[in-house]
Amino acid sequence: MDDDDLRRGRPTCHKAFDEATALLVGDALQPLAFQWLARDPGLGADPAARLRLIDLLAAASGSYGMAGGQAIDLQAAGRRLDLAQVDDMHSRKTGALISASVLMPAECAPRADGATHDALRRFAAALGLAFQIQDALLDVLGDVGTLGKATGADRERGKPTYPALIGVTASQARMNRLHEEALAALAHFGPDAAPLRDLADWLLARSY
Amino acid sequence: MDDDDLRRGRPTCHKAFDEATALLVGDALQPLAFQWLARDPGLGADPAARLRLIDLLAAASGSYGMAGGQAIDLQAAGRRLDLAQVDDMHSRKTGALISASVLMPAECAPRADGATHDALRRFAAALGLAFQIQDALLDVLGDVGTLGKATGADRERGKPTYPALIGVTASQARMNRLHEEALAALAHFGPDAAPLRDLADWLLARSY
Repeated sequence: MDDDDLRRGRPTCHKAFDEATALLVGDALQPLAFQWLARDPGLGADPAARLRLIDLLAAASGSYGMAGGQAIDLQAAGRRLDLAQVDDMHSRKTGALISASVLMPAECAPRADGATHDALRRFAAALGLAFQIQDALLDVLGDVGTLGKATGADRERGKPTYPALIGVTASQARMNRLHEEALAALAHFGPDAAPLRDLADWLLARSY
Repeated sequence: MDDDDLRRGRPTCHKAFDEATALLVGDALQPLAFQWLARDPGLGADPAARLRLIDLLAAASGSYGMAGGQAIDLQAAGRRLDLAQVDDMHSRKTGALISASVLMPAECAPRADGATHDALRRFAAALGLAFQIQDALLDVLGDVGTLGKATGADRERGKPTYPALIGVTASQARMNRLHEEALAALAHFGPDAAPLRDLADWLLARSY
C-alpha cells in the first residue's frame, strides 16, 4: 500500500474497499446530509431556516464550491497558476465547506444579525486559507508517521502549491497573518468566541 | 471507442471528457438539484413542501435508493441472485428515482390526498420495474444502431438480468403485466391521467 492511500494513518476508503465502493459511499452520504437538514427533528430550525441551510451546503458543495475547486485542481496539475488562482482554487475546494460549517450554525440563531454573519464569514475565509497553506507546508515539512499520509505528494503531482509559488518562509508568514485575521474577526464576539479561537489555534498548530 | 461508451448514440461524459470530470459533474449536479428545490422561486411550494421534496429526492438517491441499488448491482456481478433480489436491486437503483419523479409533483399539490399519493406510488413502482425489464430485453434483443448503446453488455458482465433468470418470453409477459398494473393504478384519476398513460405506453414501446 502506497503512503498516499493513508489518511490519519489508516487506509482510505478506496483502498480498504475499492474505488467503486468509495465513490458510492460519497454518492450515498451527500443526499444523507441534505435529508438530515430537511427532516432531522433534533435540528432546532424552522422550515425557512432549514432551506437556507440546504442552500448554503449545496452552494458550498457544487460547481461554484468544492466540485468546482476540485475541477480547477485537476486542470492545474503540471500548469502554472498564480497566487490569486491558487487562492481561488482553495477557497472553493475546501474553503467553501469550511465557511459553510461556520455559517450554517449562525442560520440556526434567529437573533444573529448581519454584522455577526459578516464576522463569521471573515473568520471562516481566513481560517480556511490558513488551513490550506498549513496543509501544503505539512506536505513539504511534515513527517509521514505523524501526518498519517504521504508527504511530497503535491510536488510529485506537479501541483501548484504555496511553498512552490512563494517559498516556505513566505508561506509560513502568510499563514500566520491569516491566523491573526481570523482571530481579529472574532473580536466582534468578545469572550464568547473562545471556542472558535481555540479551534483556530489548534488547527494551525497541528502537525498532522 | 467501445459501443458501451455510448448513450443514445453519443459518447458518455467519461469518454467525451474523462472519468474524473464525469465524477465531478455528478458531484456538482447532485447539490444543484437540492439547491433548486430549496430556493428556485419558480417552484410553487411553501417551505414545508420544499423540505418534503428534498426528503423524497434524498431518500431516492441515497443508501436506501439509487446508491444502495448500485452497490447491490456491483456486488451481484457474477453471482446468482433470485428474482426477488433482482426486483429489490432495480426498485432501488432506478425505481426509487422514477417514483420520486412521480411523487414529488404530488407534494406540490396541496389538495392531493392519501389515496392520490397511493395511486401514484403504485403507478410509479409498476412502471419503474417494467422499464427495467424493458431495458434488459433491449440489451438482449435490441439493435445497437437504434438503441444508441451496446447490446449484450449485461450478459458479458455476468449481471443477473430478467431474461437470464426467467427467459425472454416470461420477461415480456411480466413487463406487460406490470404495464397493465401501472395503467390500473391510474384509474383513480379518470381521464385526467391521460398524459401519464401516454408516458407509460411510450416508455414500454420504445426501442432505444
